[in-house]
Amino acid sequence: MKHFTQFESKKLADSLIEKALAYKSHPRMEAAKGLGKKIGCIFLNPSLRTRASTQIAALNLGMDPIVMNMDKEGWALEMKEGAIMNKGTVEHIKDAAGVLGSYFDILAIRAFPSLTNKQEDIEDFIFNQFIKYSGVPVISLESAIRHPLQSLADMVTIHENVGQIKKPKVVLTWAPHIKAIPHAVANSFAEWAIGCGHDLTITHPEGYNLDPMFTQGAKIELDQQKALEGADFVYVKNWSAYNDYGKIVTTDNSWMLTEKHFKHAKKAKVMHCLPVRRNIEISDEILDGTRSLVQEQANNRIYAAQSVISHILG
Amino acid sequence: MKHFTQFESKKLADSLIEKALAYKSHPRMEAAKGLGKKIGCIFLNPSLRTRASTQIAALNLGMDPIVMNMDKEGWALEMKEGAIMNKGTVEHIKDAAGVLGSYFDILAIRAFPSLTNKQEDIEDFIFNQFIKYSGVPVISLESAIRHPLQSLADMVTIHENVGQIKKPKVVLTWAPHIKAIPHAVANSFAEWAIGCGHDLTITHPEGYNLDPMFTQGAKIELDQQKALEGADFVYVKNWSAYNDYGKIVTTDNSWMLTEKHFKHAKKAKVMHCLPVRRNIEISDEILDGTRSLVQEQANNRIYAAQSVISHILG
Amino acid sequence: MKHFTQFESKKLADSLIEKALAYKSHPRMEAAKGLGKKIGCIFLNPSLRTRASTQIAALNLGMDPIVMNMDKEGWALEMKEGAIMNKGTVEHIKDAAGVLGSYFDILAIRAFPSLTNKQEDIEDFIFNQFIKYSGVPVISLESAIRHPLQSLADMVTIHENVGQIKKPKVVLTWAPHIKAIPHAVANSFAEWAIGCGHDLTITHPEGYNLDPMFTQGAKIELDQQKALEGADFVYVKNWSAYNDYGKIVTTDNSWMLTEKHFKHAKKAKVMHCLPVRRNIEISDEILDGTRSLVQEQANNRIYAAQSVISHILG
Repeated sequence: MKHFTQFESKKLADSLIEKALAYKSHPRMEAAKGLGKKIGCIFLNPSLRTRASTQIAALNLGMDPIVMNMDKEGWALEMKEGAIMNKGTVEHIKDAAGVLGSYFDILAIRAFPSLTNKQEDIEDFIFNQFIKYSGVPVISLESAIRHPLQSLADMVTIHENVGQIKKPKVVLTWAPHIKAIPHAVANSFAEWAIGCGHDLTITHPEGYNLDPMFTQGAKIELDQQKALEGADFVYVKNWSAYNDYGKIVTTDNSWMLTEKHFKHAKKAKVMHCLPVRRNIEISDEILDGTRSLVQEQANNRIYAAQSVISHILG
Repeated sequence: MKHFTQFESKKLADSLIEKALAYKSHPRMEAAKGLGKKIGCIFLNPSLRTRASTQIAALNLGMDPIVMNMDKEGWALEMKEGAIMNKGTVEHIKDAAGVLGSYFDILAIRAFPSLTNKQEDIEDFIFNQFIKYSGVPVISLESAIRHPLQSLADMVTIHENVGQIKKPKVVLTWAPHIKAIPHAVANSFAEWAIGCGHDLTITHPEGYNLDPMFTQGAKIELDQQKALEGADFVYVKNWSAYNDYGKIVTTDNSWMLTEKHFKHAKKAKVMHCLPVRRNIEISDEILDGTRSLVQEQANNRIYAAQSVISHILG
Repeated sequence: MKHFTQFESKKLADSLIEKALAYKSHPRMEAAKGLGKKIGCIFLNPSLRTRASTQIAALNLGMDPIVMNMDKEGWALEMKEGAIMNKGTVEHIKDAAGVLGSYFDILAIRAFPSLTNKQEDIEDFIFNQFIKYSGVPVISLESAIRHPLQSLADMVTIHENVGQIKKPKVVLTWAPHIKAIPHAVANSFAEWAIGCGHDLTITHPEGYNLDPMFTQGAKIELDQQKALEGADFVYVKNWSAYNDYGKIVTTDNSWMLTEKHFKHAKKAKVMHCLPVRRNIEISDEILDGTRSLVQEQANNRIYAAQSVISHILG
């Protein structure tokens, strides 16, 4: 693994999960591993959990994190090869990524999708430009189509809560939202859950299928109630349409997860990457009850990031 | 003391003042005390002095400070229990505070009042939500009604300048301003000055009384000239009306502190928490003259914060 | 050297260049030199390279950098002596600079020119207010009229690439741009190139002469093609008019540097401080070709800053 951008293999995932759990028990067990090294955390979009957890992970390894808010502190980047730069963009990604690569030992990048230019989003164009031009290891802090640090934290959380169950039934269910939301978390969760050998069912209203690239190996069941039957873990997430790209095609609020959805999944745990729109995506009773793993998932973000940074440091 | 939000006792105040002065002499005398620990500095409102001094204080103790600008880098927080989150807020305080609490050993929070919702401000609602849901020690970097780190720095400054005077006469005087300003600094100063045993007089134009909760034990004297007679320390501060909540009821500029106000208080020192509107609140002649302690107060912010963080570290 | 604001002497420049190259080979060879010391990086204007490279330089010396975005996180500063502060400014530079000086061992300040008030810009008014009132060593991160850390990095880059040439021909050429750009980089480059003993020619369209204060000792040649003949290094930069202050008087795009400009300077290297407007200031073929030193200049920003901070630490 040079960059950390997606699921690579079960073997690597297992090793990252194991290391994450070790750091969770002893966050500073390798407090000098990254001494003198710098990680540049580049945010083209806002962030709370990712911003904090990545810095903490780096600090736990003795690294110096430097945060750059490109949208606010930096400037608009030109992405087009050959562009005549006589408009709003002030620096070409080639030049900016090259410089950042010469400044930092590792770059960690957040770059959301446009949700308007499907082709560019699918190619993860902006994120890949950083990989192409920076010349250093790049960690995804959520790209147009993936959020692998979230998924690694999710796998750690499932690992901690799976108990004696050999192959847990994991359900990824669409939930309502008032905004058009990226596919990254849902894509990555599917990719990692399948890759880690879980029994994954995906459920969503008509028109909300995900990019099939990420869902090979999952059952698709459009009846939410049926999908939830016997679930051990229910991952709740909104996403906008993939076919009718970036659109909201329904907001049917019967899809909001409430206690009554768990009639046939009495022991199911509920997961969400946060931030969550309460009483739109999931009801308060679930989030404030014993099913919820959302705080643990967020906490595990630190150790997932620490495990990945440590792996890249070698 | 689990949290640092207000005056608790003269004994604790004296001990914090003493420790602050020790750190002022030897800032790095306990440079490894907080090693490996993280303090999250959460700003829901802008800050210069507080932002810098809190980070420096933490660094002097070996801690890693991480600053989060929730207003700009994060997102709008939902504060209402049971809210159906289909509007502008993107995350509930419950969830955000819970996550931050799991990330940091100590949280330091700045949350200004609305100046429109009196009840919520008086209850220090936003600030207390962080205490309620984060589960870790919380330091106030100025809440809706108090600014205790400022007041501790102010008490340190009085302590350094009081000389042989046993019970100094301290006057808190209202001053004009062009904007509606919170009550936090004035409230806290009164609370701490009284608690520390100073002889406090508060003076302000009609209509500018503070919340009586903070002024028990102070003399109230509406004639500014009379109030200033014989003062050893004069603390200048604007605040908006408390009864006619958040309103500007007069801007009478005769209340601006100038040299002629000190006819009967020849040796009085002048204090202000900064930022100060020059020639509106206080004249240049005072601020640039020998009466002024404002720079020393600002400098003492570092050691006040260091003393408090150290106390919480235990 | 107490402050670092401009070229002082060839001897000092040589020593700073030598130290920069030493740090480039061994960035952490003095990793404890600044331990426990704090540098405040104050940005009144946006920054990417400067922000990152200054922090890295400080960290390499064991210092703690604290970044303050005065424009966004802080507030508008009042600059006028005696101002009655009843308008938009919330704090006087006197008070803010005094506080920052009491908080930090070194201040590093970025303060761009107005490009409207020529007199104030020439006096480097804002920057000099920080020097006047902070009482600590101040490093320029680009002021109204100079960008000395950039120039030092440029001199390091020339030094690395000059080979056996005794007195390289260095050409500073104006290039087109769509915005009115400050003179700081061009001024400083001229000042340092002349001071370091290079053979400097400056070329620009009519109406774009620089402040003569910075160009004493340089040849001025308005025919760009003639100026470029036999050049060893070509420094490309836009600036707005100095006489018709801050205006764009031509945008003649024949001044954009392309390969055909190098007919009579076959081996010339091309320099630019970045960010560069591609295909407006310089063509892609140059920037992506072997003539370009722009990435190396940016990389050298770290070691230039480290050399200067180290010199100030003493």
